Amino acid sequence: MYEKINFETNGSDVQIIDLRSDTISKPTPEMREAMFNAEVGDDGYGEDPTVALLEQRAAELLGKEDAVFVASGTMANLISIMVHCSQRGCELLCGDNGHTFLLEQAGASQVAGVQQSILKNNPDGTFDLDELRKKIKKGDAFAPISTLIVIENTHNMCGGKVLPLDWVQKVGNIANEYNLKVHMDGARLMNAAVYLKVPPKRVCRDVDTVCFCLSKGLGAPVGSILAGDSEFIAKARRTKKLLGGGWRQAGILAAAGLVALDKMIDRLQIDHDHAYKIAKAIHATKSNIFKVDLAHLHTNILLMYVDHSKVEIRDLQRRLQTVLTTDSVKASVRCTSLNHNCVRFVLYWEIQKEDVDKAIEKITLVIREYDEMFRV
Amino acid sequence: MYEKINFETNGSDVQIIDLRSDTISKPTPEMREAMFNAEVGDDGYGEDPTVALLEQRAAELLGKEDAVFVASGTMANLISIMVHCSQRGCELLCGDNGHTFLLEQAGASQVAGVQQSILKNNPDGTFDLDELRKKIKKGDAFAPISTLIVIENTHNMCGGKVLPLDWVQKVGNIANEYNLKVHMDGARLMNAAVYLKVPPKRVCRDVDTVCFCLSKGLGAPVGSILAGDSEFIAKARRTKKLLGGGWRQAGILAAAGLVALDKMIDRLQIDHDHAYKIAKAIHATKSNIFKVDLAHLHTNILLMYVDHSKVEIRDLQRRLQTVLTTDSVKASVRCTSLNHNCVRFVLYWEIQKEDVDKAIEKITLVIREYDEMFRV
Amino acid sequence: MYEKINFETNGSDVQIIDLRSDTISKPTPEMREAMFNAEVGDDGYGEDPTVALLEQRAAELLGKEDAVFVASGTMANLISIMVHCSQRGCELLCGDNGHTFLLEQAGASQVAGVQQSILKNNPDGTFDLDELRKKIKKGDAFAPISTLIVIENTHNMCGGKVLPLDWVQKVGNIANEYNLKVHMDGARLMNAAVYLKVPPKRVCRDVDTVCFCLSKGLGAPVGSILAGDSEFIAKARRTKKLLGGGWRQAGILAAAGLVALDKMIDRLQIDHDHAYKIAKAIHATKSNIFKVDLAHLHTNILLMYVDHSKVEIRDLQRRLQTVLTTDSVKASVRCTSLNHNCVRFVLYWEIQKEDVDKAIEKITLVIREYDEMFRV
Amino acid sequence: MYEKINFETNGSDVQIIDLRSDTISKPTPEMREAMFNAEVGDDGYGEDPTVALLEQRAAELLGKEDAVFVASGTMANLISIMVHCSQRGCELLCGDNGHTFLLEQAGASQVAGVQQSILKNNPDGTFDLDELRKKIKKGDAFAPISTLIVIENTHNMCGGKVLPLDWVQKVGNIANEYNLKVHMDGARLMNAAVYLKVPPKRVCRDVDTVCFCLSKGLGAPVGSILAGDSEFIAKARRTKKLLGGGWRQAGILAAAGLVALDKMIDRLQIDHDHAYKIAKAIHATKSNIFKVDLAHLHTNILLMYVDHSKVEIRDLQRRLQTVLTTDSVKASVRCTSLNHNCVRFVLYWEIQKEDVDKAIEKITLVIREYDEMFRV
Repeated sequence: MYEKINFETNGSDVQIIDLRSDTISKPTPEMREAMFNAEVGDDGYGEDPTVALLEQRAAELLGKEDAVFVASGTMANLISIMVHCSQRGCELLCGDNGHTFLLEQAGASQVAGVQQSILKNNPDGTFDLDELRKKIKKGDAFAPISTLIVIENTHNMCGGKVLPLDWVQKVGNIANEYNLKVHMDGARLMNAAVYLKVPPKRVCRDVDTVCFCLSKGLGAPVGSILAGDSEFIAKARRTKKLLGGGWRQAGILAAAGLVALDKMIDRLQIDHDHAYKIAKAIHATKSNIFKVDLAHLHTNILLMYVDHSKVEIRDLQRRLQTVLTTDSVKASVRCTSLNHNCVRFVLYWEIQKEDVDKAIEKITLVIREYDEMFRV
Repeated sequence: MYEKINFETNGSDVQIIDLRSDTISKPTPEMREAMFNAEVGDDGYGEDPTVALLEQRAAELLGKEDAVFVASGTMANLISIMVHCSQRGCELLCGDNGHTFLLEQAGASQVAGVQQSILKNNPDGTFDLDELRKKIKKGDAFAPISTLIVIENTHNMCGGKVLPLDWVQKVGNIANEYNLKVHMDGARLMNAAVYLKVPPKRVCRDVDTVCFCLSKGLGAPVGSILAGDSEFIAKARRTKKLLGGGWRQAGILAAAGLVALDKMIDRLQIDHDHAYKIAKAIHATKSNIFKVDLAHLHTNILLMYVDHSKVEIRDLQRRLQTVLTTDSVKASVRCTSLNHNCVRFVLYWEIQKEDVDKAIEKITLVIREYDEMFRV
Repeated sequence: MYEKINFETNGSDVQIIDLRSDTISKPTPEMREAMFNAEVGDDGYGEDPTVALLEQRAAELLGKEDAVFVASGTMANLISIMVHCSQRGCELLCGDNGHTFLLEQAGASQVAGVQQSILKNNPDGTFDLDELRKKIKKGDAFAPISTLIVIENTHNMCGGKVLPLDWVQKVGNIANEYNLKVHMDGARLMNAAVYLKVPPKRVCRDVDTVCFCLSKGLGAPVGSILAGDSEFIAKARRTKKLLGGGWRQAGILAAAGLVALDKMIDRLQIDHDHAYKIAKAIHATKSNIFKVDLAHLHTNILLMYVDHSKVEIRDLQRRLQTVLTTDSVKASVRCTSLNHNCVRFVLYWEIQKEDVDKAIEKITLVIREYDEMFRV
Repeated sequence: MYEKINFETNGSDVQIIDLRSDTISKPTPEMREAMFNAEVGDDGYGEDPTVALLEQRAAELLGKEDAVFVASGTMANLISIMVHCSQRGCELLCGDNGHTFLLEQAGASQVAGVQQSILKNNPDGTFDLDELRKKIKKGDAFAPISTLIVIENTHNMCGGKVLPLDWVQKVGNIANEYNLKVHMDGARLMNAAVYLKVPPKRVCRDVDTVCFCLSKGLGAPVGSILAGDSEFIAKARRTKKLLGGGWRQAGILAAAGLVALDKMIDRLQIDHDHAYKIAKAIHATKSNIFKVDLAHLHTNILLMYVDHSKVEIRDLQRRLQTVLTTDSVKASVRCTSLNHNCVRFVLYWEIQKEDVDKAIEKITLVIREYDEMFRV
């Protein structure tokens, strides 16, 4: 789906501003300190006190009965699907731009045997609720059985969009009506909470289970939280072992996770502001080739749309990364291409104010260059 | 997806015209004769001469190297998916109205571990080829690997539509370009061949594997043919055993299948004509509530669209099946609802000219009744 | 596991006596008549009256609430495993010589995701019940969950052995104690009933579900019965569709199945007698190379053990099939090798008294030949 | 299979000596230092330099082309099975006391669809090679296809036994002969190398792939290494992502792993000596109730066999953990029960000389108590 590229940057005095993904964020000094001092035990036997504390804190934050600490968002989603869709012949409904459908190697089908019935994602990460109703399958002898709805918040491929709270509530209502469960892939749920200015638990109030990543914007090195009711989490713990996710003295990582919960949530607003600042600068170029949707920029993921009849995405990426001897700005900006007409910039804690300013200089320089080339 | 209903018909002198599906067609007297006399052996060891003959004849008819005789179209599709998608993490691309996606209990995911990536079906059973290209996934470390394209011909849920030969060729070309395989779910492939006035092998010329049903329009009691190259069929025979499809003296059923190939293909034109006759009669009512797409009626499946703001599908079905004492026509017509605004009539060999005429009388009577009720 | 071979037989006046398996038995004339006249409907919609009658009759015969007619014993076993082991992480316990473990392409694991935990089969087809108890896994966080016990009756690879009724009862008791289910793979259950001189339902009284084949000794061309309680069978019907076992006018085959139930069960005693007659003749040779276990011959499957330090199994098979010009007996006897020191002869209705006598002549001729060669 | 129990220990001045498992070993101070200073990157994109270094170092140590760092031994085994058994219908052969069969929730079948065909483990962790040859299945149309042999070294459930190098070589030879692959579950491979006084690569010279744990005896908090040829590891990296094992700044954990490789391998001899010391002390009691197999004690896992007609395992465990007011030794010793007649003591770096002495005092005290009770 999306490809990571890494062109060589020439020159040693060049400042690299890596906006490919918040997944590359590194642990903060405070996290390193916490890991150094972490009290640990064998999580394989449920005896790691720091993991236990993190799980309890995370469950409270999300307003769910219990939580389990796992290695990745993909593992959290896969476990959730396996537990919710525990019977043979289950189907889940999700968006066609969703992470579970596009970016998890089809684990739902491959590992869990669950069909993903996709609904067309709107640009804001939602999908049509009438279409949802129509696609729910119940009881036909020839069809699979719809069991689970998966929604994504914030929505990665839709550019970090935050799902409207009332839409999530409606999804929950439909799920209740048809006796389905709802799982929220909230890899970046904390960005949604900050954007909405509500507590995290409000974001996932209307879903049965939810996961979020302690890495990505929150900066912890490894790990995600999957939360739900106690019965669900008991089964999730078992499934975690099945997948080989049963780790030992994971309290090391949990310690960083606790710092993430304490210190890294509120500051996400800074990343959002930084994304907006870059977007505004791009918008201000009034380029005909490069566009951003300033009005609908929610969080730390900024999509820049490119007129691909004029600009090849890989050329753009190479130009943004390269510092020419004639360049006034000695900055190399890395980004990701989502497809042939869109690149993605993602902000996170290590990208400071100065980096943002430098990135803006470089991006607008490149935009002006292209614009000039195509001016008649 | 679609529901079979069976209302009680009152009165014993009532003529029942069952247009729910061609799957209910019974074997012809000649088939019964052939089954009675069939030479048989143990197909589990590849020793049934009649099965061998049927497989050879069917392979020739389809222009493929080899063929295998299996219990159903669903089994043929599932085997094909399992053989083509033999590696872990495969994905197939198919239409969102396709049989494999909607009506096979998600066997592709559930049994074969294969994700079905769906493309929006056009009303004619095709899908957009640019969208197809865009959705093909090759090599991304996070994504499944697109391996197979499944197309359906004629297309059941699209109303027995015949896929245009040049569209099938284009699908084949794209598959070659991206190193994918193409499987044609040709449950009603013979109807397509008759409609197109080409030999069956021309219909599936551009696909790697194909199946068709000897039951349905061809009238045999049980069984489908899956054809492809020799290596594929060798694997398919093995997979057939895995699924429990290894049967013993299946020559009994194959004998009926041979009659189907000899005697039942050309006569499908009659079913098409019958469907057209009914459609014309409905069209002639000029009803505002009930519509048919006369210009795009291809084969033996007729969809009648219903204004569901006025008519409940189940009410319509009940009325078509019931004979009121005041009714001038003593006929009970059965049909299937595909969804809340569409019923399906299907023609097959046992529905003779007189049945068609009687069905027309009854259907138009019911249409007029509804039209009168809603005339202002 | 076991290999079917088919050497060429020279001479056209040679009588072929094919004792490889009862799976090669052909339908009787009465079955052909019944199939010719069978009333049929679409079994895909539960509307085939002959299938319905067969299922009802078979359920009564087995003393179970309901039954479903499927394409093969392998399908019956696979469906049963899928329904009983409906949750993730199930394990079944079965014998290491069992059909589900050795001869069904590991469908339990491959299709159903169920681990087969094997217990060493005793020569009589049973396994040790203390070992069974020890191997049952319940609740450990690292282990799968034992859910089902599969037993085989009569036991094919153990030479058609009939499981003792009290052993089956004990298995049932252990299952109750640990809240497991028991499935009896009774492919040749009717042979067991005839041997035990009890009604079929007595044979499977202590198990939850059971299947038997209408082909094999009962002579019907295709099909097996799977029986259990109504809830189980409802799920089995659904799983049958999933696997592609949903066939249409299967009443053709069911008609032969009804004849099998009416006319072919009691006569199995003849096959047992024939097997015993051959065994006695082999035993009477007092050969040092070829042995039979006369005292434990139960049904229609006769194992002849071969001293493989002296005789290669394939040489023996070739010699039994070949008629030399010097041979006094013009008979070609086919058999199957189970392994390098054992061949299997299987009796069924087409092997008449005269065939048995001829087979005895040929087998003893070959035995004497070998014995002479190795006499010092 | 084996149950972890945790009785309460009374008294605060009591010394707890936890010999349940080496999985509970905590990171060393040097590891904490290394984690604090670790250079990290996003391992999801293959950019973590410390992970890369660890993988390279581990591959060299094992004499394989490449290696991948994963979350657990269970994940390493599951990935290996999924990659080796990439085709449908594969079977692996392993010991009936093996970790993959008993203690991984049947992931091979459940997740990978692979049947585990078990061979009876000898007390030394090997299995019979003639039986292995007999059980290999190749090409039969009704059987799964044997693809992989899994051996375990050291063998956990057999008491930390080291597989003889020549036996491993013979397994490798048989695998070559039949075109199978061999995977060594070397969770405690370094203990085997230390016992054999050979470099680690010698231990796994004759197998295709191998894994070992950086936790357990080596003391790292989290993680295992899976090694093999480059093509295998490329596929393993993909499968790791599928299972949700794709973690981000895993260099934190890899840093501890590097310390484990540098500092913790040679010292395993101390754990072996400690185990031997305890065993000798138990042996010296000449108890009739409690036995150890001193002659065959290889590494850090000590099994003590208990006459269960006299002593209930749970009573023994409770007594070892409890400090009575009358006890001369103020030590609480924890151990694991493998079954009703065996407890397991496991040594690791945190169990120092003094702990061992104390544990010996307590264990022998309890043994003498029981012996007295049963002395006539």
